[in-house]
Amino acid sequence: NKRGHLYRVQHQSHPLNMASVKVFGSPTSAEVARVLTCLFEKEIEFQLIRVDNYKGQRRLPEYLKLQPFGQALTFEDGKLTLVDSREICRHLADKYADQGNRDLLGSGTLERASIEQWLQTEAQNFDPPSSALVFNLAFAPLLRLDQDWEVVEQSMKKLGKVLDIYERRLDETDFLAGNKFTLADLSHLPNAHRLVADDKCRSLFKSRKKVYRWWEAISSRPSWKRVVQMQQEPPHIV
Amino acid sequence: NKRGHLYRVQHQSHPLNMASVKVFGSPTSAEVARVLTCLFEKEIEFQLIRVDNYKGQRRLPEYLKLQPFGQALTFEDGKLTLVDSREICRHLADKYADQGNRDLLGSGTLERASIEQWLQTEAQNFDPPSSALVFNLAFAPLLRLDQDWEVVEQSMKKLGKVLDIYERRLDETDFLAGNKFTLADLSHLPNAHRLVADDKCRSLFKSRKKVYRWWEAISSRPSWKRVVQMQQEPPHIV
Repeated sequence: NKRGHLYRVQHQSHPLNMASVKVFGSPTSAEVARVLTCLFEKEIEFQLIRVDNYKGQRRLPEYLKLQPFGQALTFEDGKLTLVDSREICRHLADKYADQGNRDLLGSGTLERASIEQWLQTEAQNFDPPSSALVFNLAFAPLLRLDQDWEVVEQSMKKLGKVLDIYERRLDETDFLAGNKFTLADLSHLPNAHRLVADDKCRSLFKSRKKVYRWWEAISSRPSWKRVVQMQQEPPHIV
Repeated sequence: NKRGHLYRVQHQSHPLNMASVKVFGSPTSAEVARVLTCLFEKEIEFQLIRVDNYKGQRRLPEYLKLQPFGQALTFEDGKLTLVDSREICRHLADKYADQGNRDLLGSGTLERASIEQWLQTEAQNFDPPSSALVFNLAFAPLLRLDQDWEVVEQSMKKLGKVLDIYERRLDETDFLAGNKFTLADLSHLPNAHRLVADDKCRSLFKSRKKVYRWWEAISSRPSWKRVVQMQQEPPHIV
């Protein structure tokens, strides 16, 4: 019968049935970019699924508005579904401990505690002002929203104080949690990349010698370069 | 419990649960482009889902190889799944008869018969030589495959004969099935676009006055212009 035939077609050729690790979202979202960098570091095979909604000839703007706030990330690994980018990175580093970069969450309890501490610092201190800056300086003009210059000024001050702490820390170690690149560093990449590219914010990084040396080290990782390339390219070359 | 929570998260926020019409594939595929043009003509709300497979830092090449042959199209409308682009266009014109462009399949039996006849001509006579040319001239270099010049020469001859028939037909009517733009014309857009862009093949169209007038009319439709734009742009601007 026809329905049976269609059912079979769907299950044989449905393009979402291949890999067990699936990321739904756009690489241009900071949340998605964080997860992609981690997947590349861990050399994990995955599918990236980008969803666009269209009505008439327009791409629906609701989806665009979700992007900068990072709500457009969904992650599946088999039957597990997660939506928080840092939780997803921890899951990947744990579950795929024996492949790719094995240092992302450290090997001993002490190492892991230091990494977790700096992961928290990123999420609680670096992320709020840097996300506010990325939104107001990079995304608001594209979405034709008003830029809130008071928020920009306050966020730059807050971020400066956070980076002062980083400057002192990075005088002692090459990376935030020690002398190896870990999830703590990785988590900074998406927002820091947009800020260093912005005329107003670049000096926050450039004026701090150790911070800038650290930025150059983490942003030159092949995993991150691949994500930047994905942010710029159409999804298929042919 | 945790599994129940995850299940709920998946069903509330899963990005594939919104629209009932879903297209899986890349707009750069001729099959997908044909369906997108039809969706825009009919002003149907839909989701475009692009799937990329990655391993390590590479995009897996298998998927690229599928693209030019158009096997990377899946279409869902509620519980219905289809994979043939022309069948999908007929389905859309039938099911959504009362919205958008109402002329795509005509209104009377005679009109529809003429449209069907030219749809068959496109599928059986225009598509084989034009797909062979698009593959050898546009995709093979990108995929670093050898170009088969014998196939190119034979296909150009075959296509020339098909376009001679078109030239006589288009001396009588503005479009293939009559004086309105229909699915019969629409189906030609993806391959014709690549051929007119190619230095070797452009003259096949330009040297035939009525064919070229027809090409200019069908390729200037806003629905098709939107698809060309989608073929060139990254999926999200932010």
